[in-house]
Amino acid sequence: MSVSVSETVQMGRGLYLNQFSSSRHIPAAVKFFPHLCSCRGFRLKACYSSEPSSSSNRYLSVNAIGSVGGDKLAADTRLFQIINGTNGSRPNLYSTEIRVLDAFDDEYGGVIVDPERLPENPNAFACILHSSLSRWKMEGKKGIWLKLPVEKAELVPVAVKEGFQYHHAERGYVMLTYWIPEGPCMLPANASHQVGVGGFVINDNNEVLVVQEKFCSPTCEGFWKLPTGFILESEEIFTGAVREVKEETGIDSEFVEVIAFRHAHNVTFEKSDLFFICMLRPLSTEIIVDDLEIQAAKWMLLDEFVEQPLIQEDSMFKKVISICIARLGKRYCGLSSHQVVSKFDGRLSSLYYNVVDTQDSNCSTC
Amino acid sequence: MSVSVSETVQMGRGLYLNQFSSSRHIPAAVKFFPHLCSCRGFRLKACYSSEPSSSSNRYLSVNAIGSVGGDKLAADTRLFQIINGTNGSRPNLYSTEIRVLDAFDDEYGGVIVDPERLPENPNAFACILHSSLSRWKMEGKKGIWLKLPVEKAELVPVAVKEGFQYHHAERGYVMLTYWIPEGPCMLPANASHQVGVGGFVINDNNEVLVVQEKFCSPTCEGFWKLPTGFILESEEIFTGAVREVKEETGIDSEFVEVIAFRHAHNVTFEKSDLFFICMLRPLSTEIIVDDLEIQAAKWMLLDEFVEQPLIQEDSMFKKVISICIARLGKRYCGLSSHQVVSKFDGRLSSLYYNVVDTQDSNCSTC
Repeated sequence: MSVSVSETVQMGRGLYLNQFSSSRHIPAAVKFFPHLCSCRGFRLKACYSSEPSSSSNRYLSVNAIGSVGGDKLAADTRLFQIINGTNGSRPNLYSTEIRVLDAFDDEYGGVIVDPERLPENPNAFACILHSSLSRWKMEGKKGIWLKLPVEKAELVPVAVKEGFQYHHAERGYVMLTYWIPEGPCMLPANASHQVGVGGFVINDNNEVLVVQEKFCSPTCEGFWKLPTGFILESEEIFTGAVREVKEETGIDSEFVEVIAFRHAHNVTFEKSDLFFICMLRPLSTEIIVDDLEIQAAKWMLLDEFVEQPLIQEDSMFKKVISICIARLGKRYCGLSSHQVVSKFDGRLSSLYYNVVDTQDSNCSTC
Repeated sequence: MSVSVSETVQMGRGLYLNQFSSSRHIPAAVKFFPHLCSCRGFRLKACYSSEPSSSSNRYLSVNAIGSVGGDKLAADTRLFQIINGTNGSRPNLYSTEIRVLDAFDDEYGGVIVDPERLPENPNAFACILHSSLSRWKMEGKKGIWLKLPVEKAELVPVAVKEGFQYHHAERGYVMLTYWIPEGPCMLPANASHQVGVGGFVINDNNEVLVVQEKFCSPTCEGFWKLPTGFILESEEIFTGAVREVKEETGIDSEFVEVIAFRHAHNVTFEKSDLFFICMLRPLSTEIIVDDLEIQAAKWMLLDEFVEQPLIQEDSMFKKVISICIARLGKRYCGLSSHQVVSKFDGRLSSLYYNVVDTQDSNCSTC
């Protein structure tokens, strides 16, 4: 079970081995290690970190690791014996052995604990985690990645007590990390952004597709706005904009260009927010309002839309709408989406850039 | 302690009350509730959800909530009495009372548990959480937000056992949620993207600033690439690009434009990746290599850089570099950054768009 070195990507302070993103193909076999994608270039190796054995129970002789921490390890051993009910009756097997968590080395001196081979019992886990850390410290390891599936939530307080910190969580697991070296932690950060889209949909009658929202602050009561929303997991920006317009208004449309984008910080869950204003071409006319989130939707004359006080009085709204109008007048270039594949990761991704010298771009004189 | 309604923002399926992002100002007083920012428009109310009392212990008479679930609540009460060591000696105080977790209502029928008033004892928490859920269900509440600080990690398995799911985690806490209604969970998703930047820095001698990375796959051995990296928490794209170039090469530079960006999926921690290629103007010449991540850095003739097989053979790299060259030849318009404030949230944010009809844009004929 290994990942091609060509798939390695480094994060931390933030290098991309793949020049234009950290994206890479991950074999299905290691999909259960999402963090392998790019944690400072984690790369799965064909063998375990400590022993060549692929057994889920591996042992380390106290003598083998020398006197350093020997007493500590012996104590762990005794604790392990107590927890596992081993006693004097099997002195030869346990008295000088320590169990170490199954883990994989990563390419940057770190360790990735195998989430599929964790002990069930919190006390056993406490003992094994402690002795594993002692060993990893002696081995000069750096970052430890501990992914605890939701079914093993009882192990979370044990890991925290041992000094692990939360890194991120998804529905099915919480990821904890432990940075062994002195100095600042060099492990990569969690996802940092939410991505939203807004659709500027205008028809041949110079009417803009606008909505009024159900959950509206007094400030924006009566304000007709563009359909907006967040893109879904792994959704394209151009797809998300079309979907949101369809969901909120029932109008089918096709993506033309990203006109502009806004970058704001400290927003949802204190994360940052990237919002892409997209120009869309309508493909239908009949409006069907989404009762869940939308109060009303209609086609509104562009002039009437722009004259709304909230747009006239807001420098940002005013600017964005003026750009959209410039784009309609072919005095502006937005970014269109192009599907490209890079040899680095072999994956199809979307590259957004101006298309110059083409009729479609409306920007032929750029 | 309240948040102005004008600061409300809705997520879930993804509406933005603030038309051009979900960003909003959050009073310091409620900073400890990051999820208040936008969880389907959560808005902190001036009072608690269940009682006007601001006491951390509030009680609910079994009679007050009628016969529905009365037995269940009575059982919870007894359990609570046992856990809290209350007995027959104080029948009048406890016999018909249930403790409910301190929480705030949100604007969308949900509940936000106060993370600063959680019980210490996991058994007490188990009892109170269970009875609180019973009550919230009877009240027809929807999404429950439970933020457990790392100091209270022992409560995590209790919440999971009660049916809560992980939503996200940051260093200091794990956020769990419980969706009460039947049907799909409408709570907003976690952050979905990492954001990276690459710097195309070219000097007056037509030389590009390039690096070779220490952690390099055989595929890119000997390949000279642009400096790249991830932006930091709350960092601007234009700042991040300049910082990465400085960190990796020691070269000072100033941001000119975002030339293009790439959107890829299923990358770090299975999140998506937005990568912005930025054109930068060098402000210094002397290269100082970052020993930690960079093998070598130098100024390389543009032609020589482009002729590298990895660029010639990779459609994406080739396209991006051709765009950069078009930009140098004033045949392309990138997006420059503009600081704008919206009245909706009163915050300064960056709007990226083409500057037309200005000398700086090199795109005066757009």
